[in-house]
Amino acid sequence: MGLQLYDLAGAEPKRRFSPYCWRIKLSLMHMGLAFDTIPWRFTDKDAIAFSGQGRVPVLIDGDQIVFDSWTIANYLEDTYPDRPSLFGGEGGRAVTRFVNAWADVILVGGILRLIATDILTHLDEEDRVYFRETREKRLGATLETVTADRETSVLAFRKTLEPIRTVLAAQPYVGGGAPAYADYAVFGCFQWARCTSSFPLLLKDDPVWAWRDRLLFAFDGFAAKSLGYVV
Amino acid sequence: MGLQLYDLAGAEPKRRFSPYCWRIKLSLMHMGLAFDTIPWRFTDKDAIAFSGQGRVPVLIDGDQIVFDSWTIANYLEDTYPDRPSLFGGEGGRAVTRFVNAWADVILVGGILRLIATDILTHLDEEDRVYFRETREKRLGATLETVTADRETSVLAFRKTLEPIRTVLAAQPYVGGGAPAYADYAVFGCFQWARCTSSFPLLLKDDPVWAWRDRLLFAFDGFAAKSLGYVV
Repeated sequence: MGLQLYDLAGAEPKRRFSPYCWRIKLSLMHMGLAFDTIPWRFTDKDAIAFSGQGRVPVLIDGDQIVFDSWTIANYLEDTYPDRPSLFGGEGGRAVTRFVNAWADVILVGGILRLIATDILTHLDEEDRVYFRETREKRLGATLETVTADRETSVLAFRKTLEPIRTVLAAQPYVGGGAPAYADYAVFGCFQWARCTSSFPLLLKDDPVWAWRDRLLFAFDGFAAKSLGYVV
Repeated sequence: MGLQLYDLAGAEPKRRFSPYCWRIKLSLMHMGLAFDTIPWRFTDKDAIAFSGQGRVPVLIDGDQIVFDSWTIANYLEDTYPDRPSLFGGEGGRAVTRFVNAWADVILVGGILRLIATDILTHLDEEDRVYFRETREKRLGATLETVTADRETSVLAFRKTLEPIRTVLAAQPYVGGGAPAYADYAVFGCFQWARCTSSFPLLLKDDPVWAWRDRLLFAFDGFAAKSLGYVV
């Protein structure tokens, strides 16, 4: 039996939009590990209570239960050393933590403020209440307030991507000549938006757009085929 | 003969403040390579014309002439493979480029807006004219205008350091258990400020302060002993 991954879903079970779950799905594809996903919703706390906490991704690998995307990535790297590496060595692992942290702060934080109201429309009723309550508390404002000026705030968001552009001017992936976890950490955030929102985060002439396209169509278009918007 | 490094100096020849030169000085210490520095000023274009361009760091290693900090770091890594690695493998090298780019955009850009007028006071007369002209063109405003509200803008600057804090909560250095080029890329920016300005960029209870201290006192206090401010 392959691995099993609890994967955040919207009202439609096939809408899988968690940035953290996308990091792991692409990591599993990268390593060529077979896996099934189990759709899960924000309020299905009981379904993953066995993991000792209440958020996804949760990975089940035989008798191992692992949660938190960074912990799962490290688990996979250490457990399957004969598979293609996610980090490209210990230096890569250490420094990828910075890219991961940057993506969590700048991209998850920045994108949430642009698409929060769009995410809401794709959640089932119970999750909608949960999402509004938890995110409005985090943001200190209503979802409608934070996204109201997004046509303007997206300009500042695009500027925050400058470090990626500098890297992509020199190499095709953040991980170097081929994608690595550093790419999946960043890509997961854009895929989160693509699966829930038609709002144009990126312009077509942005090198980040072309990089995202390469990852969308990696692994036989695994990410491109997922339910979302062509944007 | 050891290596020679052209190193940016202020009016006082011992005030060595370039963030890019600091990256390389700490890299040379890291690798245990003996080197001498040659003080250089912004307007000494003739002195480094042999390198085919007009900025430091410029490294001379026998008959090799190398410029640009990222290029020099890669040159050292490739030329001295038996010395302690700056990147910790190819994955580390690729992803460190992101940290380097982030430091260039967020730290060099952010810190310049806080200390530009302080830098000016430490330059010799000819460099003062050059610095004002080039930086005001880059900033689109006078140096005095950009630093005027620094008591307020430093609060936003400190928030941009959040990805480093996340990393330091899990490991002592950006490079992992020991410092690596990713650390020097970031540290060089803080050292640039420390050598030219008494303005408090960091608060003492910030984990970034403690990390900076560890690097200040690394290599027998090489960076701590340099001419600057205790801030």
